[in-house]
Amino acid sequence: MTSPLFDPLLGADRVAERLDDASWVAALVAVEVALTAAAAEHGIVSASDAEAVAEAASSLPVDPAELGRAAVEGGNPVIPLVRMLRAAAGPAGRAVHPGATSQDIMDTAAMLLVGWAGEIVLDDLRGAADAAARLAAVHRDTPMIARTLGQQAVPTTFGLVAAGWCAGLDRARTALAVELAHLPVQLGGAAGTLAALHPHGPAVAASLAARLGLSDAAPWHTERTRIGALAAVLAIAASACATPATDIVLLSGTELGEVAEAAPGDSSSMPHKRNPIAAITARAAARRAPALAGVLIGGEHEHQRAAGAWHAEWQALTDLLRATGGAAARLRTSLDGLVVDPERMAANMALTTDEPTTGHAAELCDRLLAARP
Amino acid sequence: MTSPLFDPLLGADRVAERLDDASWVAALVAVEVALTAAAAEHGIVSASDAEAVAEAASSLPVDPAELGRAAVEGGNPVIPLVRMLRAAAGPAGRAVHPGATSQDIMDTAAMLLVGWAGEIVLDDLRGAADAAARLAAVHRDTPMIARTLGQQAVPTTFGLVAAGWCAGLDRARTALAVELAHLPVQLGGAAGTLAALHPHGPAVAASLAARLGLSDAAPWHTERTRIGALAAVLAIAASACATPATDIVLLSGTELGEVAEAAPGDSSSMPHKRNPIAAITARAAARRAPALAGVLIGGEHEHQRAAGAWHAEWQALTDLLRATGGAAARLRTSLDGLVVDPERMAANMALTTDEPTTGHAAELCDRLLAARP
Amino acid sequence: MTSPLFDPLLGADRVAERLDDASWVAALVAVEVALTAAAAEHGIVSASDAEAVAEAASSLPVDPAELGRAAVEGGNPVIPLVRMLRAAAGPAGRAVHPGATSQDIMDTAAMLLVGWAGEIVLDDLRGAADAAARLAAVHRDTPMIARTLGQQAVPTTFGLVAAGWCAGLDRARTALAVELAHLPVQLGGAAGTLAALHPHGPAVAASLAARLGLSDAAPWHTERTRIGALAAVLAIAASACATPATDIVLLSGTELGEVAEAAPGDSSSMPHKRNPIAAITARAAARRAPALAGVLIGGEHEHQRAAGAWHAEWQALTDLLRATGGAAARLRTSLDGLVVDPERMAANMALTTDEPTTGHAAELCDRLLAARP
Amino acid sequence: MTSPLFDPLLGADRVAERLDDASWVAALVAVEVALTAAAAEHGIVSASDAEAVAEAASSLPVDPAELGRAAVEGGNPVIPLVRMLRAAAGPAGRAVHPGATSQDIMDTAAMLLVGWAGEIVLDDLRGAADAAARLAAVHRDTPMIARTLGQQAVPTTFGLVAAGWCAGLDRARTALAVELAHLPVQLGGAAGTLAALHPHGPAVAASLAARLGLSDAAPWHTERTRIGALAAVLAIAASACATPATDIVLLSGTELGEVAEAAPGDSSSMPHKRNPIAAITARAAARRAPALAGVLIGGEHEHQRAAGAWHAEWQALTDLLRATGGAAARLRTSLDGLVVDPERMAANMALTTDEPTTGHAAELCDRLLAARP
Repeated sequence: MTSPLFDPLLGADRVAERLDDASWVAALVAVEVALTAAAAEHGIVSASDAEAVAEAASSLPVDPAELGRAAVEGGNPVIPLVRMLRAAAGPAGRAVHPGATSQDIMDTAAMLLVGWAGEIVLDDLRGAADAAARLAAVHRDTPMIARTLGQQAVPTTFGLVAAGWCAGLDRARTALAVELAHLPVQLGGAAGTLAALHPHGPAVAASLAARLGLSDAAPWHTERTRIGALAAVLAIAASACATPATDIVLLSGTELGEVAEAAPGDSSSMPHKRNPIAAITARAAARRAPALAGVLIGGEHEHQRAAGAWHAEWQALTDLLRATGGAAARLRTSLDGLVVDPERMAANMALTTDEPTTGHAAELCDRLLAARP
Repeated sequence: MTSPLFDPLLGADRVAERLDDASWVAALVAVEVALTAAAAEHGIVSASDAEAVAEAASSLPVDPAELGRAAVEGGNPVIPLVRMLRAAAGPAGRAVHPGATSQDIMDTAAMLLVGWAGEIVLDDLRGAADAAARLAAVHRDTPMIARTLGQQAVPTTFGLVAAGWCAGLDRARTALAVELAHLPVQLGGAAGTLAALHPHGPAVAASLAARLGLSDAAPWHTERTRIGALAAVLAIAASACATPATDIVLLSGTELGEVAEAAPGDSSSMPHKRNPIAAITARAAARRAPALAGVLIGGEHEHQRAAGAWHAEWQALTDLLRATGGAAARLRTSLDGLVVDPERMAANMALTTDEPTTGHAAELCDRLLAARP
Repeated sequence: MTSPLFDPLLGADRVAERLDDASWVAALVAVEVALTAAAAEHGIVSASDAEAVAEAASSLPVDPAELGRAAVEGGNPVIPLVRMLRAAAGPAGRAVHPGATSQDIMDTAAMLLVGWAGEIVLDDLRGAADAAARLAAVHRDTPMIARTLGQQAVPTTFGLVAAGWCAGLDRARTALAVELAHLPVQLGGAAGTLAALHPHGPAVAASLAARLGLSDAAPWHTERTRIGALAAVLAIAASACATPATDIVLLSGTELGEVAEAAPGDSSSMPHKRNPIAAITARAAARRAPALAGVLIGGEHEHQRAAGAWHAEWQALTDLLRATGGAAARLRTSLDGLVVDPERMAANMALTTDEPTTGHAAELCDRLLAARP
Repeated sequence: MTSPLFDPLLGADRVAERLDDASWVAALVAVEVALTAAAAEHGIVSASDAEAVAEAASSLPVDPAELGRAAVEGGNPVIPLVRMLRAAAGPAGRAVHPGATSQDIMDTAAMLLVGWAGEIVLDDLRGAADAAARLAAVHRDTPMIARTLGQQAVPTTFGLVAAGWCAGLDRARTALAVELAHLPVQLGGAAGTLAALHPHGPAVAASLAARLGLSDAAPWHTERTRIGALAAVLAIAASACATPATDIVLLSGTELGEVAEAAPGDSSSMPHKRNPIAAITARAAARRAPALAGVLIGGEHEHQRAAGAWHAEWQALTDLLRATGGAAARLRTSLDGLVVDPERMAANMALTTDEPTTGHAAELCDRLLAARP
C-alpha cells in the first residue's frame, strides 16, 4: 500500500518504497528463486534447471495488478506467480516451488520485506535518537521548569528531558534491531512436515535461510509469537517517537515557546503561526501502531494454516511498518535542528520558582547518554 | 491508499477506487469549487470569479505525488492545492478558499469520500444480506444440527442460521445508511467562529452543504463524535460480515461439509481441497476494522484543532472503509451461490439425534425475514 | 469487578455498585424468576410452582465466591445457580429454568446490568453536559484565543468552546439513551429454536421481556451487532468526556491558567500546584474504552454459541461501563464549578492579537445550546 | 480488581490474589518502608526513625476502601497513605517518603505487583508448556491429518502439533521471564532530578532497588517503553495460550473428536455434550489482552508526569496480568490430561488419504522439544 498524496506528509514515503506492490513481487520472486537454488544444492532439482529458473525470474515481467487479479481465485499471489514462473522457465519450470506451500513463500517474503523496511525504520530511529542526544549534550545544564500533570512543578534541565527522549528511542530501536537480526525463514510444505522434500527438508530450509540472509527455523505456520514480537517492537518504537513529539508540540505552544522546529509550518491566513508540523505528523503516524500491533498479536492461528488470521497479516504488518517508519522519519526531522530557547525557559520557570535547583539532572543526563547502545 | 496486488484478494478493489489519491484530489477540488460558489451566492466573491474558479478547477492538472510532496511543509494538501488553484484562476484566484481553514476542506472532502465509498460498502452489504435471505428462504425447513461451544447440540434449520446472518448484516447496513444520510459539512474558518465570512458564515456553510449533498452543521473541528459514530458502524458492519464468514469456513470443513462456496480455491499440490477462499478473505479483511475504529473513536481532539489526532484520521478512515468494504464484497461472493448439502446436514445430525425437532426455527426464520428493512 | 481502592479515584464507584458480583447474582436470579413466571403465564409451569420459585428466590442466600467456584465446571454461573434455586424451591424446582439455555439467562441478565449501570452513566453524562451548557451560557461572550495545532490562532469565545463540549456530550448520551431504551431480551433455548417451549416459545420470550422491562427480540445468540452497537456508544461517550477533560488539563496549565477546577488536587511537596485531578482521571478512565469496545465489536461468534468470544464479553462489557461511567462522573466533577478566568484569557490573547473579533462565535454558541436534546 | 464470581471461571483467581487491593496496599507500604530504610543507609534520615517507620508500617491498619476514598482529592493513594504512615510513626514520621513523589511509589509498587503476579503467570505458562511437551513426546509418531484453511490437507503427527503449541508457549514465557528479571525501580522525586535527595539521589535509588529485588534504573517517569515491553510480552503470552486453546476447541468438535478434555463441561439439558470448557475460557481470558496492551503501549506520556496516561496504567496493567494469567491457568488445565484419540485421528485422515506419510514430522517434533529453554 502506498499513497503518494499522504505518505510524504506522514513520513512514510521512504519506507513505503520497500513495502509497495513491486517490493512484494520482488520478494516473492527472490524467495522462489532461492528455494529452487536451495533444492538444487541438495539434489532435489537439477543445477541447470535452477539456473534456468533464476534466469527466467530475472527478466520475468510481473504486473502487480494482473497478479493481484489472478490471486483472487486461490487466495494468495503465490499460486499465479508460480504459474507464471513455471511458464517462463520452460522445461525447467518443473524445478519451481519444490516442496513448498504458498504460506512458505508468503511468510518468507514478508520477512524479507520486514528486513528491507526495518533498516529504514532503524535508520530513522537512530537519527532521531542521535538528534535527541545532541540536544541533551548541548543543553546538559540548561534549566527549565518540569511540568507534572500539566502544571509547573520544580526545575529540571532540558538536557535531562532530551536524554529521556533519547533513552526511549534507543531502547525501542535496540529491541527492533534484535528482532530484525533474527528474522526467520519459513519452509514447512503443505502441512508443516516438509514431507515433499523428505529426507532433505530441514537441510533445504537451512540453505534457503542462508541464501536469503534469514535465520533457520522449524516451520512456524501457526506459531506466530515471532510475528507478535515483531509487531510489539514496532508499536513500542512508534510510541517512543510519539512521546517526544508530544512534548515538542506542547513546548512549542505560544504560551510556552521553549522550543521551535527548524522549519515550522506556516498558515496562509495566520502568518504568526509556527506549527511544529513534523512533530504533529509524527504523532499522527504513530497513532494507529498499537491498534495494528494488536491485530497481529491476537491472531489465534488455528490448525495448520489459519483461515483469515494469516491473510490479515499482510496489510497489517506493512501498514504497521509504514506507521512506525513514518513516526520515526517525522520525529527525526522535528528533532534535527530543533531550536531551543533557554531565555524563554528561564522566564517561564520564574513563574513558580526563583531558585533553579536542578539536583542530579546533569548527572542523570550524563548517565543516560553514557549508557547509549 | 491502494494496493493492486492485494486489494482484489481482500475485496477492496471496488471501494478503493473511491478512496485513492485521485479521489482525494477530486474531493478537495470539489469542495473548494463549491465553497467559492457558495460564497458567491452570498456576495462574498463575485459570480464571475466563481465561474472562473470552477472553470480553472475543471481542467486543473493535479499530480497527487507532487501535491503530496508540497503538502509536507504546511502539514496538509489543502495549502498547496489552494496555491495551485489560485495560480490557475488568474485574477479570480482571489475568490479561492474564502474564509476557510484547511480543516474545513479536508473534513468536508473526507465526508464526500465516505459518501462515495460508503455507497459501495452499502451495496455489497445489501448484496450479502440478500444472498443470505435467499438461502434462508430456500432452506427454511432444512434441518441441521446446531453447534454450541463447538459441540453438536440439538437441531435447528439452515434457514434460521442464514436468517440470523441476514439479520446481522441488515442491522449493520441500516446503521451505516443512517450515518451516510447525515454526513455533515465542515465550515468554521480559522477558529471555528466563521469570522472571516461574517456576517454570512452560517449561510455560506448551509449553501456549501447543499451544493455537496451534505448536511448542514455547526463547526465540529474538535467535536468528533460523528467520526466516532461513523467508525463504529463501519467496524460493526465488518464484524457482521466476519460472523457468517466464520460459519462458512467451519461448515465447509472436510468433516462437516455442509456448505461449499460456488468457486472454492484450489491448491496446486492438493487437488482434493476446496478452500472457501471468499469467506476466508472476508474474515481477513474484517479483522483490522475494530482496531482502526478504536483509533478514530479515541481521538481526544484538543483545543480548536488537534495536533496529530486529526491528521491520523485520514488513513485510518479510508483504511477502515477498505476493510469493511472488502469484507462485504468477499462475503457477498461467498454467499452468492453458496452450495448447501442437506444430505450431509442430515447425516451429521444423525451422530447425536434421530429426531430432528426444530421447534420454532421455521417461524423464527420467517419472522427475521419479514422484519427486513 | 470492583476495586474500592481505585474506583473512587477513577470515578467508577457509583456505577460499580450496579456491576459488581452481587448485581450479577441479583440479575441472574431476577431473570430466572421472571422466566418461570412467564412460563406460568402460558401454562408451561403451574402458577403455584412459579410463586414458590419466586418465594424461594427472594430469600436464596447466594455467595458469589461459592457460585464462582461452582461455575468453573460447566463454564458459567447459571448452571450451579439453577441447581441451587431448584434445591431451594423443593418440588416447585421443576419449574425453574424452563426451556432455557445458560446463554439466555446470562445475556438477559447482562442487559439488565447494562440498563442499571447505564442509567448512572446517562445521569453523569447529562450532569456533565448541563455543566458545560451553563459555562457556555455564562461565557457566551467571553473572548479567548483559539488554539490550533497547539498554537494561538485567532479569537473565539469560551462560550463556543464549552458549547462544543456540551454538543459532544449530548450527542453521545443521546446515542446511549437510544441503545438503553431498546435493550433486548434473550430467549432461544439450547439452539435458538425455542424448541423446548414449543408452541409457546415466542410468547414466553415476549412475556419475559415485558416482565423485565426489556424489548422483545428473536434469539440473537450469535448475532451480536447489538452488543457491538452498545459497546460503540459507550466508547464514543467515554471519548466525548475525554475531549473536554483534555482541554481542561491544557487550559489549566500554569502558563495558560484560563480555567481551574473548583477543588484542584494539592501536592504535599509543591504547595503552588493546582492539579486538575478530576479532568486528569476522567481522561484516564476513558482511555481503555475504545480498546474494550473493539473486543466486543470484533467477536466473530461462531455457530450457535461462541466458544470463547461469548465468555469474553462479561468482563469486557462491565469494564467498559466502568470506564465510561468513570469518565462521565469525573468530568462532571471537573466541570461543576469550573473556575474561568476571563482576565487571563484576555491577557493570553493579547500575545497574538489586539482585536478580539469573535465572528459568529456567540451565535454558534446559541445555536448549539438551542439544539440541545 | 477482583471478581470472585468470574475469576475462577476465567482462570484469574490465583493471579488475582496478587493483584487485589490488599496487594496494592502491601506493595505501597513495602516501598515506603524500603525507601525510608534506603534513605537511612545514606544518612538522610536516622536509623532509629527508619526502624520506627518500619515498625509502624508493620502494624498499620489500612482499609483499601478508606484509602480509596481519601485518594480522590490528590489523585492517587500515595498521598493519604503517607499521611497515615506519618501519623502512625509519631515523631519518626518525618522520615517517611523522603525525597519521593507519588509516582515513584506507585510505579515501584506496580513493579512489585508485576513481579508477584508474574511468577504465577510464568508458573502456569510453564505448566501448560510442559503439558504440551508431554503430549508431544507421547504422540511423537501419532499420525493425524493436517488441516489448512479449515480443510483436510495432508498428514502430520499430533506430536508435531503439540510441539508447536509448546514452542509458542516457551517462546512467550521466556520473553516474559526476561522482563520479570529486570523490573526497574522508580525514584526520581518531584521532577525526575532526585533534587530532594541530593547529593545521594542515585545511591538511594540503588539501595531502594536492592532492598526490593528490583533493577536499578534512572528515573523513567515518562519514558514508558519498559511498560510497553511488559505489556507486549503479556499479550503475546495470552495469544500463545489462545492458539492451542482454539485448536483444542476445534479438535474436540463432535465431528472431529480427536481430543477431549479430561473434565469437559456438561450441559444440564444435553447430556451428550462434552464442552472443552477450560480451552474455551482460556480463549475468553486471552481475548482482551492485545487491546489492553495497546492502551499501555500507546501512552504518549507528556512532560514530566502524564495527566491521564499514567493513571490509566494501573487498571490496564493489572487487568492484563489477570487476562494472561487466566489464559495460562485455564490452558494448563485443558492440556493436563488431554485425552487424545489416535483411532479417531486415523479414521478422520482416511477421508482424504490412505497413505499417512508424515515426512519430517517426528524429527521436527524432536527438534522443537530439544530446543526447549
